Amino acid sequence: MQYLRAFFIQYRMSLVIIGTVAFDAIETPFGKTDKIVGGAATYAGLAASYFYNNVKIVSVVGDDFRREDIDTFKDHGINVEGLQIRQGEKSFFWAGRYHNDMNSRDTLVTELNVLADFDPIIPESYQDCEYLLLGNLTPQIQQTVIKRLKKRPKLIVLDTMNFWMDVAWNDLIDTLKLVDVLTINDAEARQLSGEYSLVKAAAKILQMGPKYLIIKKGEHGALLFNEDKIFSAPALPLAEVFDPTGAGDTFAGGFIGYLAKVGTVNFNNMKNAIIYGSALASFCVEKFGTEKIIALSNDEVAARIKQFIALSSFTIET
Amino acid sequence: MQYLRAFFIQYRMSLVIIGTVAFDAIETPFGKTDKIVGGAATYAGLAASYFYNNVKIVSVVGDDFRREDIDTFKDHGINVEGLQIRQGEKSFFWAGRYHNDMNSRDTLVTELNVLADFDPIIPESYQDCEYLLLGNLTPQIQQTVIKRLKKRPKLIVLDTMNFWMDVAWNDLIDTLKLVDVLTINDAEARQLSGEYSLVKAAAKILQMGPKYLIIKKGEHGALLFNEDKIFSAPALPLAEVFDPTGAGDTFAGGFIGYLAKVGTVNFNNMKNAIIYGSALASFCVEKFGTEKIIALSNDEVAARIKQFIALSSFTIET
Repeated sequence: MQYLRAFFIQYRMSLVIIGTVAFDAIETPFGKTDKIVGGAATYAGLAASYFYNNVKIVSVVGDDFRREDIDTFKDHGINVEGLQIRQGEKSFFWAGRYHNDMNSRDTLVTELNVLADFDPIIPESYQDCEYLLLGNLTPQIQQTVIKRLKKRPKLIVLDTMNFWMDVAWNDLIDTLKLVDVLTINDAEARQLSGEYSLVKAAAKILQMGPKYLIIKKGEHGALLFNEDKIFSAPALPLAEVFDPTGAGDTFAGGFIGYLAKVGTVNFNNMKNAIIYGSALASFCVEKFGTEKIIALSNDEVAARIKQFIALSSFTIET
Repeated sequence: MQYLRAFFIQYRMSLVIIGTVAFDAIETPFGKTDKIVGGAATYAGLAASYFYNNVKIVSVVGDDFRREDIDTFKDHGINVEGLQIRQGEKSFFWAGRYHNDMNSRDTLVTELNVLADFDPIIPESYQDCEYLLLGNLTPQIQQTVIKRLKKRPKLIVLDTMNFWMDVAWNDLIDTLKLVDVLTINDAEARQLSGEYSLVKAAAKILQMGPKYLIIKKGEHGALLFNEDKIFSAPALPLAEVFDPTGAGDTFAGGFIGYLAKVGTVNFNNMKNAIIYGSALASFCVEKFGTEKIIALSNDEVAARIKQFIALSSFTIET
């Protein structure tokens, strides 16, 4: 027994998430915030923690980041050994204003601060990484993380955005060759492939490296492509979208967190993972910043999943 | 037995569709057509005929409409007693050019011709109407059809568009009070309700008369609202959308045709009806005009329905 336990502990695997941990100042038609905690790794880490209990983040902040903010990660069981705290420097800061339709926004301020020369240090204790989420960052940094893991993770999910297609095309193309799943939105899928039809875009992108492509369509849901299979996930129609910030990161975190929990990567599990990711994202947008996803109960998540099932199920005898 | 048969014949019910029967000239990035047969009643009638065998249309054409075009309706078992043929006059003609994204188009020509003073005459044999589809036309004409039916149909579906909101708002509002189901697209739902959120828009529209609202979102599928229930139907992702003309009418025809076939109007049957309507619409856009939906086999329709099931089904144990 002792031997077996040692065996299992030794082989306990983790989910590692790299991305920004930052301050955001957000303005939407519903109001505005002061500097609040945001960043891709924050949203994704919190979301993943609802499904998987061994989440580890890699990121960097300045000494303006408060102890209580770090405690939030710890409260969710998130390992922060890979979160560098740079004394005498400031955290990454982004300020933005959403338009009335919430589908577009203006960036008001971007202060890279500690992010300017971020070197993603992977603690030795993170080498048990089985699931890796590369949150939106420079493709170069995303690639570095893959290279610093001694054993290739079972599943690598890459999130990126149009900005890197504009300024770091070659790095992005190189990084794509190293990953299993790519998550981008519909405009980005069109930009990356040069194809307007999402079916054609997906076919091209699946030749670039990823075996799975998730196209996020915001209020219209998401599409999953793998070989010749397609899954269309609905988005939950909401009376109010309060603040879309972090919804994509929350989706990605919920998605990989669920997959890490079930432990088997296949198309059917990915379909479910998309529903779980979508459910978490639907909570995210209901309040400013991380306010809603910081304190969800299991019952709330389960009830939301039931809403997704009711929303999209139909029975046709064939 | 004779008595029973007489009873059943007497109570055999029909699906009546009113809308345009017209000539279209269509230009898309894939090519252009000469004048081809189009019109809301044409697309809807053909679509409905795949599910229900007692479809009757009300419309008007000029003497430029060929006998073989009318035979197409008859070949699909569609009753054309209510199709007026005006000697010495010309059929309604529309010419349009689609933009590269296929989501927007320019109208190049609109010649109302026989439609200018269309009076929808309801043949006595149409008084058995149990299902009524009011295809896109002036709300005044749509209302006239309802008033000329001696017995209120079991289900009245209204299709309309932004144009009537612009030029015939009061008539449209009056007509809405008389119908059970409204089908419009997302921009039109926003215009009709003054609400950006489709959930809020639906809540307002369901106060205007219809018990059911279908919001068509093109490549993003459709939403069905009824009381506090919502169903989200996917659209089939297609490699090529060849010509979107008539897709909405085909959807509406397939939808009501399926409901007429099953004979019971409830939320679950409507969900299935939306899938059948979406399946027919997905065929429609694969070729120019009615070319594809004029000659579908039952096997093709069944296979497409299976694709919709595979596309949107997932299994989460709750």
